[in-house]
Amino acid sequence: MSVIRLPGLVDAHVHLREPGYEYKEDFTSGTRAALAGGVVAVLDMPNSHPPTSTPERLADKARRAAAKAVCDVGLFVGATQTEQDAYLSAATQACGLKIYVNDTFGSLRIDTLALMHRLFRGWAEQAEGVGYRMRGAAQGIGPITVHAEELMVPACLALSQLYGTPLHIAHVSRRSEIELIRAAKERGVPVSCEVTPHHLFLSSDDLPRLGVRGDMRPRLATPDDVAALWEHLEAVDLFATDHAPHTLAEKEGAALSAAPPGVPGLETMLPLLLTAVHDGRLDIADIVARCAHNPRRIYGMPEPPESWVDVDVDLSWELANSGLQTRVGWTPFAGQRVYGRVEQVVLRGQVVYAGGQVLAAPGSGRVLFVEG
Amino acid sequence: MSVIRLPGLVDAHVHLREPGYEYKEDFTSGTRAALAGGVVAVLDMPNSHPPTSTPERLADKARRAAAKAVCDVGLFVGATQTEQDAYLSAATQACGLKIYVNDTFGSLRIDTLALMHRLFRGWAEQAEGVGYRMRGAAQGIGPITVHAEELMVPACLALSQLYGTPLHIAHVSRRSEIELIRAAKERGVPVSCEVTPHHLFLSSDDLPRLGVRGDMRPRLATPDDVAALWEHLEAVDLFATDHAPHTLAEKEGAALSAAPPGVPGLETMLPLLLTAVHDGRLDIADIVARCAHNPRRIYGMPEPPESWVDVDVDLSWELANSGLQTRVGWTPFAGQRVYGRVEQVVLRGQVVYAGGQVLAAPGSGRVLFVEG
Repeated sequence: MSVIRLPGLVDAHVHLREPGYEYKEDFTSGTRAALAGGVVAVLDMPNSHPPTSTPERLADKARRAAAKAVCDVGLFVGATQTEQDAYLSAATQACGLKIYVNDTFGSLRIDTLALMHRLFRGWAEQAEGVGYRMRGAAQGIGPITVHAEELMVPACLALSQLYGTPLHIAHVSRRSEIELIRAAKERGVPVSCEVTPHHLFLSSDDLPRLGVRGDMRPRLATPDDVAALWEHLEAVDLFATDHAPHTLAEKEGAALSAAPPGVPGLETMLPLLLTAVHDGRLDIADIVARCAHNPRRIYGMPEPPESWVDVDVDLSWELANSGLQTRVGWTPFAGQRVYGRVEQVVLRGQVVYAGGQVLAAPGSGRVLFVEG
Repeated sequence: MSVIRLPGLVDAHVHLREPGYEYKEDFTSGTRAALAGGVVAVLDMPNSHPPTSTPERLADKARRAAAKAVCDVGLFVGATQTEQDAYLSAATQACGLKIYVNDTFGSLRIDTLALMHRLFRGWAEQAEGVGYRMRGAAQGIGPITVHAEELMVPACLALSQLYGTPLHIAHVSRRSEIELIRAAKERGVPVSCEVTPHHLFLSSDDLPRLGVRGDMRPRLATPDDVAALWEHLEAVDLFATDHAPHTLAEKEGAALSAAPPGVPGLETMLPLLLTAVHDGRLDIADIVARCAHNPRRIYGMPEPPESWVDVDVDLSWELANSGLQTRVGWTPFAGQRVYGRVEQVVLRGQVVYAGGQVLAAPGSGRVLFVEG
C-alpha cells in the first residue's frame, strides 16, 4: 500500500440537477459523489429547471446548496434567450457565466450573433467596476465558460478577445478544437480549456459496447480525436468531469433519439487519471495542476486550509455500478480495472470521507462566492 | 444636365459564371454589363463549374477572360473540401481566396473547423514568402474573403487574427454582423467588409412583391437590419454587387425551394447609389471611396491610367429588364425610378462605353494579377 497526499480536488464542471431534477441528483447526493472522488469543490452548471438565469434563482440555488452540500459548491449563472441580461446583477456571486453555443440538455442554447455579442460585451461591462477574479480581483467576476464545438470555438475566441473577457472552453473533444486552442495559446491569446475523462479514455469505438451509456455532448469522438487530446495535453488546463447524471431508465427507456445525453463522472475521474499515471501516460503533477491548481486559478477560488486527499495509488479495483454515491447509480466505466482509490478526504481540518464512507453532514459545504 | 467625372469603378464581388454556366453569363456579357454600370474592373468568384480551386483551372479561367472580357477582371481562387490546398500555388495570380462558410450556390461550402484552420494557416504560410498586396507587396497575395453570416463572422475574425491574414467579409446584411464588425474595427482589428446594393435598398418587406426575384444569399434582411447598415456606413469599406445572374426561367420555373439564389447587379449599382446621393443619404465621396479607392487598396489593384466614368447625375430614368447587357435580362429593381446615368466610360485612354453602347472589343480587358 502506497498512500500519497494530494490537495483537495476541484471539479469545475458538474450538473447537480437541483432544482428540478432531484430524482437524478441533488446537492447532497452530488457532493457526496464528489467527496468519494476526492473532490472538495464543484462548480455547478446552470441548466437546472428553472435555469440559473436570474439573481433570485441563483439565491435559491445557493440556499439549497448551503443546506444540503457536503463539499464546497460554486454556481454558474446561465444566459438565456428570454431573460437576457437578468443574471448580470448576480455576476459576482457566480463562479462564472456559462453559455451554451451548441446543443445540450435543457433550454439554454444561444445561437445568434446579436445575443452572443451582447453577452460578452455585458460581461465585460460588469467587470469594469470589479475586475476579474482570475486576475486577482477580490470581489471580481469569473470567466465566460462556453460549450462551444467546432467553428463555435473561434467564434467565442474572437468575442472574448474583442472585450478582454477571460474565456474557458468546456469539454474539448476534437483534434480540430485542441489544435486551434493550442495555436491560439502559442500566440498569446488568453484562453483556457478543459477535457473530460470520458473524452480522454473512451472513443466512438466504444459506442457499440456502451450504447446510450456512451451518449453525451460533446459526443464521444474518434480515436484520432482522443489521440490529439493526449498529444496536446500541454494545452489542456483542466480535467473536469461534466458529471451529468440521468437515470438508466431515462437513458435506456426512451427512443434512442430522445434519450437525454450525459454521464456521471465525479467518482471515476481520479481513479481513471491515476491509472493513466500507473500506465505512464500522466504523472501526478499533471493531475494536481489540472484538478486543483489550475481550476482554482481560473475561477479565482482560494485553497481551503487544512484540506487534502489521501490516495492509495497501488490499489487495483474494478469500477462498478454498485456502491456509488451518485443517485443514478451507474457509470460508463463499469467493469474497468483501475489503480488508485481515495482513502480519506479532509476539508478544513475535518475528515469528510474515509473508508468508503461520507462523514460530512449536509450543509457542511460552503457556497463559494456567495457566503462571505 | 450635370455631368460629373468619377474614377473607373471596381466591383469586387461578381459571378461571371464561366466556365460551366455560360447560358447565364460569360466573360463578355458580364464585363459588358460592368462597363454599362461604370465599372472598369470586376473580381470574379470561384464557384463556377468546375470551381476555381486549382492552378490549372485558374489558368483556364484567365485564358477565357483574356479572350473575352471588355473590362479588367481579377479572379478568386476557392477552397474546396476535396482539393484542399491545391489552389495555394496559384495564390499570387488570384485576387484573393474565397471561402464559403455559409450556404451558397454551388459546391464550395466549408464547414469544419479543421479545414477552416488549415485554410487560414495555409494562406498565411503562402504570404510568408511574398507578403500581402494590400500591405504594399508588389508580388504578394490578396485577402481571404469570406461568405460568413452570423456567428461565422467572429469565427473568421479569430482565425484571421491568429494568423495575421487580411480578412474581408463579403455582403454583410444584418445588424448583428455590422455591429460586430464596427466594434472590432473600433478596437483596431484589421478587417474590411462590403455591402451590396440589394441589402441597402431592399428588405424582407419587398419579398411579397419580388418573389424569387428577391431571393439571394445572404437573404434580404429585415428593415431594422437595413437601417443598421446605413447607421454604420462608416464601417462599410466597399459597395459590391454580388452580381449573381440566373435566368428567370430557372428562378421562376423551379419549385421555390429549388430556385437558385442570386440576382444580377452590375448595371444598377451606380444609379441606385447616385439616387441615394440625390436623396441626401450618401455623398459622392462615399461612393468613390467604396467603389474605387477602397477596393483597389484592399485587393492591391493599381489604378489604370487615363480611366474615368462620366455620369449625368441629374438624369432621372426607370430601371427596366429591357436594354440590359447581362445575359439574363432582368433586375430586381425593374420599375424603380433612379437618378444618374453613365454617359461615357474611358479605360486606359480608350472610350469603352458611350451613349448606351459598349465600344470595347472582347479581349480588350486585362486579367489582373495574371498578366504582367
